[in-house]
Amino acid sequence: MHALIDLYSDTKTRPSNGMRTAMANATVGDEQAGEDETTLKLCARIASLLGKEAGLFLPSGTMANLISILVQTRPGDELIADAQSHIVSTEAGGAAAIAGVSAYALASPHGIFDAAQVARAIRPASRTSPRTAMLCVEQTTNFSGGAVWSMEQLRSVLDVARGAGLACHMDGARLLNACASTGVAASDYALGWDSVWIDLSKGLGCPVGAVLCGTERFVGDAWGWKYRLGGAMRQSGVLAAAGLYALDNNVAQLARDHENAARIWRALSAHTLFRFDPPAPQTNILRFAFPGAEIDNVEFVDLCARRGVRIRALERGFVRVTTHLDISPDMADAAAATMLSAACELVRRKA
Amino acid sequence: MHALIDLYSDTKTRPSNGMRTAMANATVGDEQAGEDETTLKLCARIASLLGKEAGLFLPSGTMANLISILVQTRPGDELIADAQSHIVSTEAGGAAAIAGVSAYALASPHGIFDAAQVARAIRPASRTSPRTAMLCVEQTTNFSGGAVWSMEQLRSVLDVARGAGLACHMDGARLLNACASTGVAASDYALGWDSVWIDLSKGLGCPVGAVLCGTERFVGDAWGWKYRLGGAMRQSGVLAAAGLYALDNNVAQLARDHENAARIWRALSAHTLFRFDPPAPQTNILRFAFPGAEIDNVEFVDLCARRGVRIRALERGFVRVTTHLDISPDMADAAAATMLSAACELVRRKA
Amino acid sequence: MHALIDLYSDTKTRPSNGMRTAMANATVGDEQAGEDETTLKLCARIASLLGKEAGLFLPSGTMANLISILVQTRPGDELIADAQSHIVSTEAGGAAAIAGVSAYALASPHGIFDAAQVARAIRPASRTSPRTAMLCVEQTTNFSGGAVWSMEQLRSVLDVARGAGLACHMDGARLLNACASTGVAASDYALGWDSVWIDLSKGLGCPVGAVLCGTERFVGDAWGWKYRLGGAMRQSGVLAAAGLYALDNNVAQLARDHENAARIWRALSAHTLFRFDPPAPQTNILRFAFPGAEIDNVEFVDLCARRGVRIRALERGFVRVTTHLDISPDMADAAAATMLSAACELVRRKA
Amino acid sequence: MHALIDLYSDTKTRPSNGMRTAMANATVGDEQAGEDETTLKLCARIASLLGKEAGLFLPSGTMANLISILVQTRPGDELIADAQSHIVSTEAGGAAAIAGVSAYALASPHGIFDAAQVARAIRPASRTSPRTAMLCVEQTTNFSGGAVWSMEQLRSVLDVARGAGLACHMDGARLLNACASTGVAASDYALGWDSVWIDLSKGLGCPVGAVLCGTERFVGDAWGWKYRLGGAMRQSGVLAAAGLYALDNNVAQLARDHENAARIWRALSAHTLFRFDPPAPQTNILRFAFPGAEIDNVEFVDLCARRGVRIRALERGFVRVTTHLDISPDMADAAAATMLSAACELVRRKA
Repeated sequence: MHALIDLYSDTKTRPSNGMRTAMANATVGDEQAGEDETTLKLCARIASLLGKEAGLFLPSGTMANLISILVQTRPGDELIADAQSHIVSTEAGGAAAIAGVSAYALASPHGIFDAAQVARAIRPASRTSPRTAMLCVEQTTNFSGGAVWSMEQLRSVLDVARGAGLACHMDGARLLNACASTGVAASDYALGWDSVWIDLSKGLGCPVGAVLCGTERFVGDAWGWKYRLGGAMRQSGVLAAAGLYALDNNVAQLARDHENAARIWRALSAHTLFRFDPPAPQTNILRFAFPGAEIDNVEFVDLCARRGVRIRALERGFVRVTTHLDISPDMADAAAATMLSAACELVRRKA
Repeated sequence: MHALIDLYSDTKTRPSNGMRTAMANATVGDEQAGEDETTLKLCARIASLLGKEAGLFLPSGTMANLISILVQTRPGDELIADAQSHIVSTEAGGAAAIAGVSAYALASPHGIFDAAQVARAIRPASRTSPRTAMLCVEQTTNFSGGAVWSMEQLRSVLDVARGAGLACHMDGARLLNACASTGVAASDYALGWDSVWIDLSKGLGCPVGAVLCGTERFVGDAWGWKYRLGGAMRQSGVLAAAGLYALDNNVAQLARDHENAARIWRALSAHTLFRFDPPAPQTNILRFAFPGAEIDNVEFVDLCARRGVRIRALERGFVRVTTHLDISPDMADAAAATMLSAACELVRRKA
Repeated sequence: MHALIDLYSDTKTRPSNGMRTAMANATVGDEQAGEDETTLKLCARIASLLGKEAGLFLPSGTMANLISILVQTRPGDELIADAQSHIVSTEAGGAAAIAGVSAYALASPHGIFDAAQVARAIRPASRTSPRTAMLCVEQTTNFSGGAVWSMEQLRSVLDVARGAGLACHMDGARLLNACASTGVAASDYALGWDSVWIDLSKGLGCPVGAVLCGTERFVGDAWGWKYRLGGAMRQSGVLAAAGLYALDNNVAQLARDHENAARIWRALSAHTLFRFDPPAPQTNILRFAFPGAEIDNVEFVDLCARRGVRIRALERGFVRVTTHLDISPDMADAAAATMLSAACELVRRKA
Repeated sequence: MHALIDLYSDTKTRPSNGMRTAMANATVGDEQAGEDETTLKLCARIASLLGKEAGLFLPSGTMANLISILVQTRPGDELIADAQSHIVSTEAGGAAAIAGVSAYALASPHGIFDAAQVARAIRPASRTSPRTAMLCVEQTTNFSGGAVWSMEQLRSVLDVARGAGLACHMDGARLLNACASTGVAASDYALGWDSVWIDLSKGLGCPVGAVLCGTERFVGDAWGWKYRLGGAMRQSGVLAAAGLYALDNNVAQLARDHENAARIWRALSAHTLFRFDPPAPQTNILRFAFPGAEIDNVEFVDLCARRGVRIRALERGFVRVTTHLDISPDMADAAAATMLSAACELVRRKA
């Protein structure tokens, strides 16, 4: 029997032996007291990578988004984000529940909206409407197919937001995937954004954590909310060591993930059964739907799962496939073959 | 010099002499202790009008919407409403700020969405997405042009929402305008909706107040939030007396307001300068834009104001004109003439 | 049969004929648009009375306290107040529920704490404890027996709070009672406090309302929260007119209320059955307990109610008696006689 | 030069080599998907230890307290807890900021209050006061000197709370220290409490984490808030493995920590310079003040720090000393000697 090929998410990566060794050997201290050297080192290194003054280690990217909102808005404010973005769709309503902030959700083909959309979404100053306070972009666009915001696209929405006095936030969960795809430096993508974070537990292959960066003052305020939310830990160096290991060893692997996504795409996109959206993969995420009525995306995902390939059904008939550190080229090929045969099988059944 | 003709909103109505006399003669007591007879009488009467068990007197419709959300959701939930509805656009983000609830905003031509839109907006049960908890409709659709939800339209969205276990809320600020327009009873429109309120200070011509209705239990819980928000008053009978007077004397006048809106529409819609949306008025609200590039809606509104007619500029180039109790047919005609000449003047200037 | 003598609260006052006439004749406009002349006039007049830049008309004192907290704190902050104060005990937890602010509650004999208590309650700056952000005093001390803060007492706690950078708030629901009792000007009591409000619906005899004062900027921010909470009204001049009438006609009557409280106190305090706390009334509120075990305060209140005198049972065995505009000297005497006989009756029953 | 002896807190423990090896070898999966076997195993084991149906792994005890409040109350509610407890004093106001819940804080000598205090603190049902919803105890009482609640004490407050329908919560950060001190089983202490958690990063010596236990339903709801707060992790088995190691290896060591605390106490309590409160240590925490005016607690702590012993200054002149896994008997003796000489030195300086 084949082992499971898990393409559900790049959060499924497991720490490698090298990473485990680094964790086991980490120098640690009390993080809450600023005494954990490894955590401090990781934060400084990622802040430098992103061109920011300071960084904060957090248990999850969801907390990074939430804290960025908490620090940069007040209750009654509104943020602008894509309707499919993680902040809007997949954080259990935390922005409203905890920060009292609502979202003005934009519809855009691949999670990449334009300056005109932002301009229309910014409410005129008024005593009675929500105050537009924050712009959020997602680099890359997770549920919209792993698309990469170009420097020009980022700059154009940033200019509009800056002009209106908004705080500008980048959910950079997969920012390093964008870098691996385009060769643009992370600090270039992050330039001008007030708060930016990267995830350690996705493509980088760490078990736990994200690092949120910004000015010293922002990070100081963010620490307060981290503590209040219960995200302050103790000897977090055991986790941070994985992050340092990943920066040294796993960043270069991201290109391989992208190549594996392309392998799958090449195998499937030749067939009219699949409609890819975006039409070609830009990073480690593939998104496709079935143009014909024969295939239901949930049925398809279930059948693939029974055949040993785990992928994710999204809303509106889409399927997401995500490559990552634990996926080899052979596994990518095998998964593609399984997906193709599953699709054919479902068509046959309906015929 | 002409007096101002104020078509900015039907909230501009001033209490008539008859209403003032009723207020001055009101029997009153401590409303917080349930001892204000006039308030109790008004609440019972409106509850009966709407076919609900009980009613609650509130200082504003904004509080009626907010309390309906607070009682029927929990932090992290999401409500479904039209993007232009008062709850989404004009309550200063209170749903998120105070109830911790975000909005899934629907785009619809006149604020009237359909069952398929609701079905798509209801998120599948999930541990990570917001919980869809409430459906909100606005009868009539204020900023979308005073359109009336038909019984069929209401029933179809209600059925979808009920099937998904949502609380169903009707912002009936101008529900009686819908009734005056169609002849449908208020209790028929309200049938099956968990919480429904009508405003006293709009077409009914009272100075202050709204009455929120639902089950005894709902109103009991709503009382708690009314008190916590600071909306509990003392001898509110002085205000409630105006409501009783309005129910006796001003309901029949709503049809006159609709006829006045139609007069203005007839005067303007013959001219291609104006594009009405909805194409013909359904109640006391007119909404139009300028199809040509010559006229900017804000400039137009300013010029009308200088000429003694106050109307309201909305987003996306629209203008709203609202008739009400203090507007006579002659005033409607005069206002139409002013608007027409203002539009012509602006075209001339650009030529 | 005797009519009820209602000493439950001074909120029980009903508008007089003169006040009703003033309300009926009020010039009104849309308060939300800043167009209600009567409301503007009342706010300006009370701001002047309190020596503040600006004022805001609100439906209740509870909303005045809540907004003062919302504007001057942020979630996670802590305020300092007496444990029996209205903010802590009788606002349904609104400070925490809506502003996210907890209370550091002080125990003090008559609601009047001292500078040392405040100093101890201010938490040292820390990354992990709540931030002490606000000091709240109640002038006079409602549930603690209507005691008056002296200028010296106010100054001493204000100095400590100022030194620690706290916002300083005075719940002046009955501030004018303090003035009537001591001859100190309201603006002297209010001097140095950032936010101060007086209630219209208590000793002043109006049906509804309170006016919250502070700087222009504070009142501007307060307006935003008033709107978001649903406290913004329309032709509120009908209510504000009552306030203006009361300032002209009812302020001088407060001394009479105090004399009536003293009449009751003189009639009862001669008897060892009653232990007054404070020992002698300072304003229009009397508070007493029963030193002997024979009398239960709830039973006592019930018996008085059956005999036509309504008073209020408080926590810890106390009874509160409140005189007001609708209570004449004869009614005070009759109520005292009823209370005395009820106490004797209860003692007899236990004997 | 001597190495630092860190008695500031038992959170200062660092993972041992054995624990690090266990972490490095952990079987892991995606915790958010319920696929991390090690995390599941740890949760099941601690749930069993506490006699509860289920457990939830969290990044901190602060999050365990916050989630317990979020699940078992609603905004506007009040909880009852000791004024010095972690929930009230050291969670940055999170209960109010995030759950909208205020605290009725009890004063008690060692953090152990009695049933009569709870009974007085429970507010009678009322439409206007906060609703008392939850009782919180801390076993052992951290900032009040590490005192142990006896079974009788727990039972008596639990009975009162249960009778009033309150949710009953035990902050069991150091519950296993209580067990080590008294021999009572953890499940006996936890019996009848709805939510109980233990900390892994204090006496147990793990780097990160706490496990919160209760019914299946409670833990299901708690998961939702864990996710929304940003506490959901991925391969948390690397942390959970430390917890399993600690249960196997470090529980028995707690008695040694207690003996070390006793060593220090024996060395210091003979001297009248120190007043211990509680008079004798019950667990691994010592709390003392200086009865004489010569010694300021902050100066004392600073001097000890300069001499290589780190301890913690508390409010009101107290000092806290905490033993833990990384402190040997020799270190305890050396620390006691340093503290004694520092105290003498300060007395000399003032003489």
